[in-house]
Amino acid sequence: MTRRPDETALPGMIDARQRVTGRIPYAMDVSVPGMQHARLLRSTSAHARIVRIETDRARAVPGVSAVVSGADLVAAKGLFPYFGPVFRDQPVLAIGKVRYLGEPVVAAVALDLDTAQRALDLVEVEYEELPAVFDAAAALEAGAPQVHDAPPPTGPTYADIIVHTQAGTNICNHFKLRKGDVEAGFAQADFVFEDEFTSPPIQHVTMETHNAVADVRPDSITVWASTQHPFSLQSTLAEMFGRPAAGVRVIIPTLGGGYGAKGYPKIEPLVAVLSWFARRPVRLHLTREEEFLTITKHGTSIRMKTGVLRDGTITARQSTCFFNTGAYADVGPRLIKNGGFGTGGPHRIPNVWVDSYAVYTNIVPAGAFRGYGINQAAWAYDSQLDMIARRLGMDPLALRMQNLLVDGDRLMTDEPMVDAHFRELLGTAAREIGWSADEVPVVRDGRVRGKGLSCIVKATVTPSTSTAQAKLGEDGSLYILMSSVEMGQGVKTAMAILGAERLGLPISRVRVSEPDTDLTPYDQSTGSSRSTFSMGTAVRGAVDQIRGQLFALASDELEIAEGDLEIVPGGRVAPRGAPERGMEFGELVRRSRSGNLLGQFIFRTEGGLDPETGLGIGSVHWHQAAGAAEVEVDLATGKVEVTRVHAGVYAGRIVDPVQAELQTEGNIAFGVGQALSEEMIFDHGQLQNGSLADYLIASIGDMPGEISLDVLEHLEADEIHGIGESAMPPVTAAIGNAVYRATGVRIMDLPITPEKVLRGLREQRSVR
Amino acid sequence: MTRRPDETALPGMIDARQRVTGRIPYAMDVSVPGMQHARLLRSTSAHARIVRIETDRARAVPGVSAVVSGADLVAAKGLFPYFGPVFRDQPVLAIGKVRYLGEPVVAAVALDLDTAQRALDLVEVEYEELPAVFDAAAALEAGAPQVHDAPPPTGPTYADIIVHTQAGTNICNHFKLRKGDVEAGFAQADFVFEDEFTSPPIQHVTMETHNAVADVRPDSITVWASTQHPFSLQSTLAEMFGRPAAGVRVIIPTLGGGYGAKGYPKIEPLVAVLSWFARRPVRLHLTREEEFLTITKHGTSIRMKTGVLRDGTITARQSTCFFNTGAYADVGPRLIKNGGFGTGGPHRIPNVWVDSYAVYTNIVPAGAFRGYGINQAAWAYDSQLDMIARRLGMDPLALRMQNLLVDGDRLMTDEPMVDAHFRELLGTAAREIGWSADEVPVVRDGRVRGKGLSCIVKATVTPSTSTAQAKLGEDGSLYILMSSVEMGQGVKTAMAILGAERLGLPISRVRVSEPDTDLTPYDQSTGSSRSTFSMGTAVRGAVDQIRGQLFALASDELEIAEGDLEIVPGGRVAPRGAPERGMEFGELVRRSRSGNLLGQFIFRTEGGLDPETGLGIGSVHWHQAAGAAEVEVDLATGKVEVTRVHAGVYAGRIVDPVQAELQTEGNIAFGVGQALSEEMIFDHGQLQNGSLADYLIASIGDMPGEISLDVLEHLEADEIHGIGESAMPPVTAAIGNAVYRATGVRIMDLPITPEKVLRGLREQRSVR
Repeated sequence: MTRRPDETALPGMIDARQRVTGRIPYAMDVSVPGMQHARLLRSTSAHARIVRIETDRARAVPGVSAVVSGADLVAAKGLFPYFGPVFRDQPVLAIGKVRYLGEPVVAAVALDLDTAQRALDLVEVEYEELPAVFDAAAALEAGAPQVHDAPPPTGPTYADIIVHTQAGTNICNHFKLRKGDVEAGFAQADFVFEDEFTSPPIQHVTMETHNAVADVRPDSITVWASTQHPFSLQSTLAEMFGRPAAGVRVIIPTLGGGYGAKGYPKIEPLVAVLSWFARRPVRLHLTREEEFLTITKHGTSIRMKTGVLRDGTITARQSTCFFNTGAYADVGPRLIKNGGFGTGGPHRIPNVWVDSYAVYTNIVPAGAFRGYGINQAAWAYDSQLDMIARRLGMDPLALRMQNLLVDGDRLMTDEPMVDAHFRELLGTAAREIGWSADEVPVVRDGRVRGKGLSCIVKATVTPSTSTAQAKLGEDGSLYILMSSVEMGQGVKTAMAILGAERLGLPISRVRVSEPDTDLTPYDQSTGSSRSTFSMGTAVRGAVDQIRGQLFALASDELEIAEGDLEIVPGGRVAPRGAPERGMEFGELVRRSRSGNLLGQFIFRTEGGLDPETGLGIGSVHWHQAAGAAEVEVDLATGKVEVTRVHAGVYAGRIVDPVQAELQTEGNIAFGVGQALSEEMIFDHGQLQNGSLADYLIASIGDMPGEISLDVLEHLEADEIHGIGESAMPPVTAAIGNAVYRATGVRIMDLPITPEKVLRGLREQRSVR
Repeated sequence: MTRRPDETALPGMIDARQRVTGRIPYAMDVSVPGMQHARLLRSTSAHARIVRIETDRARAVPGVSAVVSGADLVAAKGLFPYFGPVFRDQPVLAIGKVRYLGEPVVAAVALDLDTAQRALDLVEVEYEELPAVFDAAAALEAGAPQVHDAPPPTGPTYADIIVHTQAGTNICNHFKLRKGDVEAGFAQADFVFEDEFTSPPIQHVTMETHNAVADVRPDSITVWASTQHPFSLQSTLAEMFGRPAAGVRVIIPTLGGGYGAKGYPKIEPLVAVLSWFARRPVRLHLTREEEFLTITKHGTSIRMKTGVLRDGTITARQSTCFFNTGAYADVGPRLIKNGGFGTGGPHRIPNVWVDSYAVYTNIVPAGAFRGYGINQAAWAYDSQLDMIARRLGMDPLALRMQNLLVDGDRLMTDEPMVDAHFRELLGTAAREIGWSADEVPVVRDGRVRGKGLSCIVKATVTPSTSTAQAKLGEDGSLYILMSSVEMGQGVKTAMAILGAERLGLPISRVRVSEPDTDLTPYDQSTGSSRSTFSMGTAVRGAVDQIRGQLFALASDELEIAEGDLEIVPGGRVAPRGAPERGMEFGELVRRSRSGNLLGQFIFRTEGGLDPETGLGIGSVHWHQAAGAAEVEVDLATGKVEVTRVHAGVYAGRIVDPVQAELQTEGNIAFGVGQALSEEMIFDHGQLQNGSLADYLIASIGDMPGEISLDVLEHLEADEIHGIGESAMPPVTAAIGNAVYRATGVRIMDLPITPEKVLRGLREQRSVR
């Protein structure tokens, strides 16, 4: 089946040439007349009352236009200096207290960065230390230091967020899932497993660090930023400055990577406030070291209790998840839902009880991270599943296959699974990695090999909305207006392909916008692997309006019923079977004297969970992925080498095969780093490895020698699934299982460092 | 009757604050990384063969990236170096021949302007002089030098353009109007008047001179320009570089004035070509002196023969118009149509014969100018009408009133006049100026006063197309996407008002785009006083789609039939008569979960003239204006002082009273300058006064001591008429008539200089 006419099938990003010639303009390339530069002074305490901030000498430095601290924010009239996508709990600069080590306390704006730094060097801050708490579980103990004195202020937020706060505790939010009778399930079980699995905070390490330029005037606010959420930023700034959203213009050039780090406002509210104080445009561009102090993936511990029958049937699961959301909530209150119901995995489990907590502590805030809670959940359930298989004497593949959801089964949220492809994905993974139930690890040259598997299910944010407008010009070229953010994932190319194929155009005839809230229509977010599906549907809807107009025009011109016409590749409408009698789009537009044809479409998905039971519709469709890994463990050093990885993801219909594969490769890289080395190490709140000299992302040398990819396509549903994140969690879990299968060492706490493996090997020997 | 709810009626431009604080970004504020600067070497001959151009030494100057001449254009592969809105007759740099003195011959691109100039100083150009012709009538004589050797190449052009070229002559185009039996009309007349009236070429003198930045890459063309025609520029560049229009992005910031000077491409094609040669972004910003060598209003002579009955009834008119379009056609081939049928004025004339010629000569090209042919036409017919009145012994007011079109009368083009308000406009003008049929000029202190009247009708370009898109955000703010060019006329404000009033919003809640061909939908042009009407209709259509969606949403939410709902000022929909039960737009949008409501509209007007008879539909509606002037003439010096001016224009429905009045005041300023002082003086093709030191635009000191304005509103038609140009022609003609009435001196040739008046006074005396 040919999915796409001729040239539209050409792979490659529409901005490829600009990309490789260095001509993509990023936010950091924006220069505004009169623009000055900001530097930040950050907290040296993890939790302290701010006794005094002395800024007079800093303000006196020539070339300094503003020195701002929390006291200035409080004194400012008409300014609401807090932000946050769920709770408005984060001040742009610390007010009264600091809550983590590295929190911005004072900002200086000056002609250049050196001058701003000179000013900050003259600032004196006096702290009164407060007891601090860094561990999520510890933060929930009685008498634990309280990170926030009062319940966090809320504001307008997202439709899918369920809020259960508990005043007087560090519980930022609590997601509950109650399905079936979990106690009965455990009673029915032959075996009950109880384990705790942890994942550390890690950093996204986008190539482009956070940066923004803000120009705040009495009559207008304009912000250029590297963010995945233009409209969230717009409404945040409108709220902060007490202006209508239309008074705030947010322009988003291409991002140098996002991975969730740029989801929701981060530094942009501060930059806007600084522009307001400095009365001129201000740029802030974080250093790599500051990036580590801005946002992380949630460090998480998951206590997982699973009941199984002797034959491997899962009867019940209870999960207690502690997501350490750090000093400020960010999107933690929502992420715990995905991480919470995610602990069920893609398995048939009749009785489920989940308590998933976002917990405030005195470390760097945590937020969205590629995989969005599923990395942590899959690490727990798919590690435990291999432990169960071993206990039951079952093949881990067979145990999985037996429990994987098939069409009609109920998900954790009790909604029925449709279009399930877990078995196919996992089967391919097992085949590609050369899985054998009977394989016994063999030690050779002091090294031992093993293989592991994993399979996950992941929600896409539901309900959600994407909107698009389109026009077809007099030369027959298509323009798409949309607000999805290009961040290297190729959304502009995907939208160009989707628009082009509806009209049989080559993608070279399509122009796709970047977000500009003044000009481009609403999109909820660029995240949750939703763009190709959600914005793609909106774009196709808008283009279909134009397609309909083309048929109507051609019908008039050719005097042939619309039903007897068809699109001919190259941008023509012709009588069915007589392409030579067709008319070019441009000619149709010109004859219509309409200047351009216009189209628009609003695409909404529906869903939502009951706030008390967590049951309902969790996702408009479910992302499905499987991974397999082969590792070689050096028994002398404990070092794990990943020799082979397979990653599979269900795409529904593939829009761009090249980019779909590249995204999947990217997930392998992330999954390997997360499995073996990535970890932000805090000592009493002080980050120990906050630079790329010390923090170990996977390098090309860590990549598996062999990889295989399975971007699984099933055209019958004509549905597009996002594939940006789902293949990452199973890669990590499969590596853990491979190490387990190779060595018998069960690492519960990521990452799988040589030290941990070696310790496990030694404990094995001492047990023997 | 209240037209607008509360705050929407507030006067003032939406960009007023930016405007007065110097923060409007103009094209000249655009800066692109790597951008270099261009300077031009211009022809020193009015008509010559280019024998040799030596550029080697220029190219060797350090810092020079390109030196380009016509030979390079011819040698360039894939480049079509000609442009023009009707005929592609203008090379971006002279090729083979120069056709006017001041034509660009060589361009240098360099790091800075001084370097570019140093390079040009080293260029040698050798010319072989050719016989030249400067006067339009002379250019049509047998044996006249031919400005163009071959008939001009044509290309896609505008729907309303009628082309009659005559190979082997300097006739660029010929518009014919043939109505009734003009010979019979003259035979029937008691008197036949034959006179010739001339108007000189004048310059638009926009505050901002032409400037553009072009960035031409193998895969993209981006141009920032000060032009009134973004889409014309886009298609021109697409044609020149052989690319689809979608490969060309045209961005138009606010203009510092246009007045027709910036209609259609001017310097932008050259700048793009220079970027192509220099392989980097290039800016060209014309000096004021160069502006005079770029585009002018057509110098025109009109031979007018009019037959009248003794009672003042006009029986026939024959007009022969020579519009001197200079060396290149620009939009002259279309303008002669408007100038041609414009010679009938707003009068009932049963028999008409018009030959209107655009004539090539060896002077600076002429194109669109505020008034678009009607200035020249009105100067002829309304001057002659006062001569007729004097000959018949009639009151000029009465003679006009008797002949003015009323509803149902036939215009020159034989279409019926509807919604005629000429008598009302002229009556008001006469009353405001204190017109009396019996008034006799009285000499006091060597000065004599007199009054004059004039009344005009003007077409708006028909057929034409404007399109708009709109969105309503979650805060209830409205965004309008359109491609009309803001050039100080306030189109953004007008569109904001029109959009706002459909929704009962304050205009502070409306954002209006500027043109960006990648993002904003098609508009044919910003000219012909069409934007408020044409784009306004498109904007209202797009907003009405949103309005309809709001009613539907509110009907669902409030469970009240749509017909029982109404818009309440401030942005709410409420049950009729119960505003307190209404819902805010933002709330409706949020509850709809659509992110934004979207609207779009394509507005087309229909019409066209028969190419052989000039009869048909010349305009979708007709602009109507009247003027009155009082002058005081110094009999010793001949100097004319304009003491009072009244300008009246029919607006249909007024959109913005303040701006409507300011536009009318602007027309007075233009009309006075055109009447008394503006004239580009050529000597054998050499411009004698091409600088603001020598060229006399009206200054504030030349403004009448008293002015009165009549922006006439009739709401019953609910129609918006453009008011940007129509009040200008009658001001000039009324001043001429006032001088005539004061002194008896009939100036036939604009401007009315003291020398001409003095000569007339002396001739009177010698006749006496």
